[in-house]
Amino acid sequence: MQSFNPPKRTLMGPGPSDVSTRVLEAMARPTIGHLDPAFQTLMDEIKELLRYAFKTENKLTFPVSAPGSAGMETCFANLVEHGDKVIVCVNGVFGTRMVENVTRCGGEAVVINDDWGTPVSLDKVDAALKANPDTKIVAFVAAETSTGVASDTKALCKLAHEYDCITIVDAVTSLGGSELDVDGWNIDAIYSGSQKCLSCPPGLSPVSFNERAIEKIKNRDKPVQSWFMDLNLVMGYWDGTGGRSYHHTAPVNAMYALHESLLILKEEGLENSWKRHTDMSAKLRQGFADMGIKYLVDEKYALPQLNTIIIPDHITDEAAIRTKLLNDHNLEIGAGLGALSGKVWRVGLMGHSACQANIDKCLTAFKAVMN
Amino acid sequence: MQSFNPPKRTLMGPGPSDVSTRVLEAMARPTIGHLDPAFQTLMDEIKELLRYAFKTENKLTFPVSAPGSAGMETCFANLVEHGDKVIVCVNGVFGTRMVENVTRCGGEAVVINDDWGTPVSLDKVDAALKANPDTKIVAFVAAETSTGVASDTKALCKLAHEYDCITIVDAVTSLGGSELDVDGWNIDAIYSGSQKCLSCPPGLSPVSFNERAIEKIKNRDKPVQSWFMDLNLVMGYWDGTGGRSYHHTAPVNAMYALHESLLILKEEGLENSWKRHTDMSAKLRQGFADMGIKYLVDEKYALPQLNTIIIPDHITDEAAIRTKLLNDHNLEIGAGLGALSGKVWRVGLMGHSACQANIDKCLTAFKAVMN
Repeated sequence: MQSFNPPKRTLMGPGPSDVSTRVLEAMARPTIGHLDPAFQTLMDEIKELLRYAFKTENKLTFPVSAPGSAGMETCFANLVEHGDKVIVCVNGVFGTRMVENVTRCGGEAVVINDDWGTPVSLDKVDAALKANPDTKIVAFVAAETSTGVASDTKALCKLAHEYDCITIVDAVTSLGGSELDVDGWNIDAIYSGSQKCLSCPPGLSPVSFNERAIEKIKNRDKPVQSWFMDLNLVMGYWDGTGGRSYHHTAPVNAMYALHESLLILKEEGLENSWKRHTDMSAKLRQGFADMGIKYLVDEKYALPQLNTIIIPDHITDEAAIRTKLLNDHNLEIGAGLGALSGKVWRVGLMGHSACQANIDKCLTAFKAVMN
Repeated sequence: MQSFNPPKRTLMGPGPSDVSTRVLEAMARPTIGHLDPAFQTLMDEIKELLRYAFKTENKLTFPVSAPGSAGMETCFANLVEHGDKVIVCVNGVFGTRMVENVTRCGGEAVVINDDWGTPVSLDKVDAALKANPDTKIVAFVAAETSTGVASDTKALCKLAHEYDCITIVDAVTSLGGSELDVDGWNIDAIYSGSQKCLSCPPGLSPVSFNERAIEKIKNRDKPVQSWFMDLNLVMGYWDGTGGRSYHHTAPVNAMYALHESLLILKEEGLENSWKRHTDMSAKLRQGFADMGIKYLVDEKYALPQLNTIIIPDHITDEAAIRTKLLNDHNLEIGAGLGALSGKVWRVGLMGHSACQANIDKCLTAFKAVMN
């Protein structure tokens, strides 16, 4: 057995995205202890940078030491109490995963379905809230990674708060790539991932909780069912006041990488990054249009960072096309997930991958393999 | 804000341990997709290397995509069903954490206490098993990271099986550093960490489950309360047969590092690594003895990879000593945890840190700061 030397891919799937040399180099710096004062300085900087990226002043803003799925579960396990009614908006795979989380946390999920490829319907959520006045939480995906759809997060949060509900928002694919304003939109709890528009390797899940969410967590009747994810314990580790208490061992080198990727985002400017994603997506869309390839999602709801295209009818073996893209062009794109499996491809323009060179490479490769 | 440049420490605490340049370089290789065929090859190799390190043929052997605490919870959340009686042996911090896990999973913990600094008493466990014939699981820590004590894992497993119980073993500090034989000792479920005697950055938790454990997991009445840790789902991702199904996004670069660290272990040879830890520990013990520093743990139960020394009476501010070691000598050692806080220091000789140069550095630094 030999050391592993990965092929050099261009990552235009639904994540991970291309990671810059700067971030990889940061990750390879010498490991220090997770209780080292120098590491605590790093933790403080990461929290500050994440507040910038999320547009929030929330004190409890930090990366969960595990991938986005664990960030999702951290939100549900802490906020859902036994018997809580939770409205879950499902318009793709990650909405269905939210339902799983609610049920496993002992909550009662009220599921609002919308067609995959369309945004969450405000009217349906409003009707569900009216019909279920005892609802405690409204949960939805801001940017569905399985379809490439953006829902109206601001309006959904406003609506949920009219019924005095707490909101849990999946922003795994949003953060850094398209408009997101945690404080301005009054999001109570949010989770994301490191490997999408932050262009950091996978493994960390940035989260943020406002005071309303923390209040619910602190006043739970029963302890959070997960010890690892219990924010009442994790707060003691990530909270800088009065020294940190040991909870778990943070993935030190992964934090170096996240810090560097957030620094790069700040150097570019958050709004500039959003604009770059939008601009690049328009170019990619034009290129696909020129080839006669259609998008699944109406342009006004389409995420710039995740472009879901309909597999043309004449393609009989879509997996073979993806294999050719990978083997002949070192280009990774994403397959369809769940109900969209075999029907769409997902082309990511996330973070560092949202650049002209990648678009050119992608269109050239598609032209070559589709012939 | 600047890029983070960590100080160059010598890591002789309870983990993380020193990470070799080879492992750091591996970690910095270009990120590829977590469903890339090349990554799947890496996953297969990691499973094979972990089987070597654990001394097992267990098919379900893989690293959980999160730190050791999540590996612990993965074992308990999957194996403990509501109402299950679990004998938990507590002789340090990580035993108490097991109790927390049992309770949060809806199990009933029967706690067997032994003095911190001594091993788990077989007689007490035997008595508890006799008194509780409905016990389903016996859980204990093979190598207590909070005290530096090795318990008799082989004998405890044998005893538990006489009463038809499943065993859950914490080997976070054991793996690669001292004798461990999953198949030979008939361990049913085991978890470890990447950042101890494997000398890999923190963030991953190698686990292994035998058929008896898998049988219990597959036949649960209710789903595992954690979606992220549910082995019924994770198996579909880590199991190579018939293609992998997406569950979560694995921390790709962390896996590169783990692969390289396991390769280094295999190159040295598992038994040679154990012997090196034993040899180095004897040298360190002699050095401390020459300085009049005493060990907490009787030599016959002491872990070579974690040396717990009693803080001499004349030291009035032990934290100041650790700060001096860190600031003046770039040497990290560990504080006492829980009941041993302020009473002991923990000096790790884990993985790559178990070498003559570190021992020399450590003894020199101690002499300098203790004067």
